[in-house]
Amino acid sequence: MQNVLIIGGGGMIGQKLAAHLAANGLNGDRDLAVTLADLGFPVAGAPGAHVRADVAEAGTMTRLVAGRPEVVFHLASVVSGEAEQDYAKGWAVNMTPMWELMEALRAHHEASNGHYRPRVVFSSSIAVFGGPYPDKIGDEFLSAPQTSYGAQKAICELMLGDASRKGLVDGVSIRLPTICVRPGLPNKAASGFFSGIIREPLNGAEAVLPVEDSVRHWHASPRSAVGFLTHAAGLDTALLGGRRALNMPGFSCTVAEQIEALRRAAGDEAVALIRREPDVAVAKIVSGWPRDFEPRRALALGFRSEPDFDAIIRVYLEDELGQG
Amino acid sequence: MQNVLIIGGGGMIGQKLAAHLAANGLNGDRDLAVTLADLGFPVAGAPGAHVRADVAEAGTMTRLVAGRPEVVFHLASVVSGEAEQDYAKGWAVNMTPMWELMEALRAHHEASNGHYRPRVVFSSSIAVFGGPYPDKIGDEFLSAPQTSYGAQKAICELMLGDASRKGLVDGVSIRLPTICVRPGLPNKAASGFFSGIIREPLNGAEAVLPVEDSVRHWHASPRSAVGFLTHAAGLDTALLGGRRALNMPGFSCTVAEQIEALRRAAGDEAVALIRREPDVAVAKIVSGWPRDFEPRRALALGFRSEPDFDAIIRVYLEDELGQG
Repeated sequence: MQNVLIIGGGGMIGQKLAAHLAANGLNGDRDLAVTLADLGFPVAGAPGAHVRADVAEAGTMTRLVAGRPEVVFHLASVVSGEAEQDYAKGWAVNMTPMWELMEALRAHHEASNGHYRPRVVFSSSIAVFGGPYPDKIGDEFLSAPQTSYGAQKAICELMLGDASRKGLVDGVSIRLPTICVRPGLPNKAASGFFSGIIREPLNGAEAVLPVEDSVRHWHASPRSAVGFLTHAAGLDTALLGGRRALNMPGFSCTVAEQIEALRRAAGDEAVALIRREPDVAVAKIVSGWPRDFEPRRALALGFRSEPDFDAIIRVYLEDELGQG
Repeated sequence: MQNVLIIGGGGMIGQKLAAHLAANGLNGDRDLAVTLADLGFPVAGAPGAHVRADVAEAGTMTRLVAGRPEVVFHLASVVSGEAEQDYAKGWAVNMTPMWELMEALRAHHEASNGHYRPRVVFSSSIAVFGGPYPDKIGDEFLSAPQTSYGAQKAICELMLGDASRKGLVDGVSIRLPTICVRPGLPNKAASGFFSGIIREPLNGAEAVLPVEDSVRHWHASPRSAVGFLTHAAGLDTALLGGRRALNMPGFSCTVAEQIEALRRAAGDEAVALIRREPDVAVAKIVSGWPRDFEPRRALALGFRSEPDFDAIIRVYLEDELGQG
């Protein structure tokens, strides 16, 4: 029996991960006890034990890992837009709890005479990067974030990397592309419109596009995100050579190319539902984001994502709208 | 009157910085009130008000910045070897206080309706880097530290960078080369021998060399370190373009080349005082360190160091032994 803890298990990715684990197990192991921790959970959500927990509250991480889970997915986070608006909250949720998690796991490691050394998979983000960028960001490009969210993610990577190097935990940080097409309602992420301009028209609703059509960005589907997480949970970390943060694969395209993929999937009618409403604040944040990557290490380690934006839309149609 | 706070003012660099400020002012301003904060201070040390302070104690940073200093130099740190031996202490001294400093300065920024926005100069280190390295490390090379010390320094850079981006403080992190030739007694830094093999022979004493002669590393003198700090305090940070951590210039040479420079300065007799005593632990740490840099940004911003190792030895002879 493998104990799996998903911190942030009530969120979109956490729920999809939990559903995947219930249906498929974790890398072939179906004998799992999955615990989801979050502020709240969707009604009729994914299977798993539920623990209500606020990671920003001191002591929460200690409580969550009391059962010594073999695998910890740490997905809990305030999103980029909110971390930018509320500086104190962003740091309190996105940084401090990671340190408490490392300390709580270290206590168990030491109490077990070094036997307990859980796999920790942290959902980092391409927001750890800041411009100016090369045409394609390589695996050795510096992390110089230009948002609080990105700085917090980069710091968590460093904490996890050092605890792993010291053998206290066995961690992997995966730097997620913008996950698109997100189901459900918009969240406070500045990147929300990348999903909105596809999701809303596919559901017959109007969508707002706050940036220029020429904006290029880096995308992968929620299904790929779950694949990244489970693959990271089973990875031979000896192959990481001390660099435990990985740029995940994705697909680079412009908003215009996204829209053309939408047209191929759902016709002119759907495209006509996109309303252009420039938002200077969003455009400014997005202008600082990475546009393209060359994620050689992750590809060599077996991480996979969609080959084009049509495939990303297909995942939405299949997984959310039951088509295909 | 400009208030200058040196956190870590009792250490080697802090003392030299305070002596420099007393003799020369700060970038032309001689009307300074300098406060040195540290666990302790050398007898007959550099001028300045002394405050005994343990940065690892909660509340210390708040107390230290109560007078709203215009310039804060944050130099206080557990050195690399000690941070590696004592994981908990390293994080408690090298990370947590930086966050408390940012929060204490933010409180003053907000209480002053945004008027108070001090210059903060943080002494980071080339230990933020980890191998494998290119022949010369450029300004866009990733920070993937392979020591706790390096991880802690990288995290502090990110905290300072984000608080600066938000306009709460006006920070610069300078990544110091190994500072050599350090005066005085050896400290717990794994890099201590780089100074020891020069300093001890110049003082007629035996020195231990724990690594191979072929080991290459990146050096600058204590005088250069003070120059970096004062230059950073006066820098037009608008020129940094959002990347507030800078690789400082230095001189790259092998231990063999260091020894030949010692021979030119003090003869075969001095060189004969170096005793080879391989230390696997030190050799392992040092093998992971950077060897050479191409610090274009820092050079373009006017940071300067010695052109060769002979000049580095000359600084020691002049500043410590009163020669030249």
